[in-house]
Amino acid sequence: MNTLTSFPVATETKVNGARLWQSLMDLARIGATPKGGVCRLALTALDGQGRDLFVQWAREAGCTIRVDAIGNIFARRSGRDDSRPPIMTGSHIDTQPTGGKFDGNYGVLAGLEVVRSLNDSGVQTEAPIEVVVWTNEEGSRFVPVMMGSGVFAGAFTLEHALAQRDAQGISVGEALTAIGYAGPRGATPAVGAYFEAHIEQGPVLEAHDRVIGVVQGALGQRWYDVAVQGMEAHAGPTPMALRRDALLAASELVGEVNRMALERAPHARGTVGAMEVFPNSRNVIPGKVGMSVDLRAGDDTVLLDMDADLRRTCARIARERGLVIDVQQVVYFPPQPFTPDLVEGIRSGAEKLGYSAMDVVSGAGHDAVYLARLAPTAMVFVPCENGISHNEIEDAQPEHLEAGCNVLLQAMLRCAGVVA
Amino acid sequence: MNTLTSFPVATETKVNGARLWQSLMDLARIGATPKGGVCRLALTALDGQGRDLFVQWAREAGCTIRVDAIGNIFARRSGRDDSRPPIMTGSHIDTQPTGGKFDGNYGVLAGLEVVRSLNDSGVQTEAPIEVVVWTNEEGSRFVPVMMGSGVFAGAFTLEHALAQRDAQGISVGEALTAIGYAGPRGATPAVGAYFEAHIEQGPVLEAHDRVIGVVQGALGQRWYDVAVQGMEAHAGPTPMALRRDALLAASELVGEVNRMALERAPHARGTVGAMEVFPNSRNVIPGKVGMSVDLRAGDDTVLLDMDADLRRTCARIARERGLVIDVQQVVYFPPQPFTPDLVEGIRSGAEKLGYSAMDVVSGAGHDAVYLARLAPTAMVFVPCENGISHNEIEDAQPEHLEAGCNVLLQAMLRCAGVVA
Repeated sequence: MNTLTSFPVATETKVNGARLWQSLMDLARIGATPKGGVCRLALTALDGQGRDLFVQWAREAGCTIRVDAIGNIFARRSGRDDSRPPIMTGSHIDTQPTGGKFDGNYGVLAGLEVVRSLNDSGVQTEAPIEVVVWTNEEGSRFVPVMMGSGVFAGAFTLEHALAQRDAQGISVGEALTAIGYAGPRGATPAVGAYFEAHIEQGPVLEAHDRVIGVVQGALGQRWYDVAVQGMEAHAGPTPMALRRDALLAASELVGEVNRMALERAPHARGTVGAMEVFPNSRNVIPGKVGMSVDLRAGDDTVLLDMDADLRRTCARIARERGLVIDVQQVVYFPPQPFTPDLVEGIRSGAEKLGYSAMDVVSGAGHDAVYLARLAPTAMVFVPCENGISHNEIEDAQPEHLEAGCNVLLQAMLRCAGVVA
Repeated sequence: MNTLTSFPVATETKVNGARLWQSLMDLARIGATPKGGVCRLALTALDGQGRDLFVQWAREAGCTIRVDAIGNIFARRSGRDDSRPPIMTGSHIDTQPTGGKFDGNYGVLAGLEVVRSLNDSGVQTEAPIEVVVWTNEEGSRFVPVMMGSGVFAGAFTLEHALAQRDAQGISVGEALTAIGYAGPRGATPAVGAYFEAHIEQGPVLEAHDRVIGVVQGALGQRWYDVAVQGMEAHAGPTPMALRRDALLAASELVGEVNRMALERAPHARGTVGAMEVFPNSRNVIPGKVGMSVDLRAGDDTVLLDMDADLRRTCARIARERGLVIDVQQVVYFPPQPFTPDLVEGIRSGAEKLGYSAMDVVSGAGHDAVYLARLAPTAMVFVPCENGISHNEIEDAQPEHLEAGCNVLLQAMLRCAGVVA
């Protein structure tokens, strides 16, 4: 964690935007869907083909390849001093079942483009550079999500990850072996710094007409299952005053979850995404409602305060309406601030290159969130059309992707150092 | 409609509560469920057995039987003047799939007990008395609901009703023939007055500790399908201000539907019983919600005002939240006040017999609601345990059922007249 050094950067080195775009389009052919998206679930044969293509490209760019026991691929471009911990960048190439061409893939291929551009310019770095493909970020086939980076960062054990099975009963370990990406076990190496370029997957940059999102960190998340138990009764014969309507209480809670986030603007989020109503018949007052609550905030104190607000609000609604409301937390991710000096590198890179930029937070999880537990970390976001992601219509502008890649290059050189 | 006459009533005639209870228990054996309820869907073989038992009992009580083309059974006890239109009472004996012993059955067997009690006391009435079993009130197997009384009252045609098919493709006409209850076609006869005794199916009498509900009429109903179209997005990366959350809008509407009914107390009702959320995933902001709205009121002006309020409120929410909300009315039943003089007969009967009574409205539909379109009509309610109905645990007190039957007897004699 203390190996970080900043170097002056040669801003004249630029990436090749057309080559980056072409690589994105080429990789997107593996698992391409008729609607223009990509379906390349983690550790399937298609994922294996995608990995093979990346490895081929990285080798062609002069990199050496290492695969670890959870299948993460590390493509290394040597530095002048290979005893230094590598300056790392990457993301994932597995997709959602109806995924797009850019989520994850952009971060991996932007890293590859950095290597290719350094080769083109004949730049030698002090520290080595590594481009990483993290295994199973999406979690669509195997849980937990962010599996490869989670094992790397020690969030859970390799054994736990390898033992997970998909819906067909195939384990992660078996799937890794089948596609030839089960590497040897070994200690987690030191990391000099970690960068990740990613499409925003949200609408903020587009709404503000900015090209570069300088990511301050990732929001903490608390997810809950809430069960509202009222009293089922006939909608006609039951006067309003004698009801214990579970959906009325649940609806009040939806509004309150929204209020909790609005009161903690700008970075707090509160969402009820799922709701099931019982018996769900048009002339029966609902007796039971099951619902999810998803609370997010940039600061753990704020998130804890939201947790207390949620429990207090549920207790009040239950008391006032004569119902029982049960609240169970099912997921907790702490907020993860990124490293100020690296974040500054993203910001100054954008400034020097003349790109419009703004500070943003990452509302979603990324591999960078786990990497930040063991190395200085930062992310750069670029806009995606209408903020849409995890969808086959996911789209991004070539010039935005190029801009993000140039910022990534500058920020990485600032850490890796250029040999004069 | 102008044949109604009131006669002085001999209050000394009383029904036999034990016999009424025994008949209810005997009929409940046909289609009995392990949980103590009854499953006797309309026009099934079990319904046929229940009808046969009623017909046998009615014949044993000296009645003549007539079955019409939609399968309604009319059991007539002659009056002194059989040219007078009959004073009629009844209900239905078909049940919900998980129905109880009392819903409908009570009204039919209370009518039979009135006939039996008049026989016991040797009372001759001026006008004939008829006990009716209406076909398919519940609508569980065939729609529309309240089919037999609907055809009788001309709410829809016999042909329409006979052509309806169940999930197996069997038509009403075929099912009637199969159980031997397809009677001849004929003009609807004149009805002197119609009474119906029923369990309340709601909690009001129990909450007020009253035995007799003097039913003023039935609430009008307007049912709607409402579709809220917002914008699906990731719960993490999408700030609160940039959301178009369909569930948040739908939840506000649930609260507003409740408000609409509360503002029009005591008889208005507003219920959202059903809701479907898309894509219904915990970390995705809902893009679409489908929901039902059920509005009821005792007065058509109030119901129209609620309709306008609903449409205005949906328009406001859509405008404020940047969503599209579509409102489609799918059902309309006008409010149906009962005949004041007959309602007064129910009230005075309860008073003379010393039963605690209160004015109530019927929030649900009943065969009486259709009968009220062509004859003077009133209903008497008795409490059911915890207001629960359409459930195998539906229950009622024998003494309450007896009390309701005594009130029914008094009210019918008041119309039919006792021959001195």
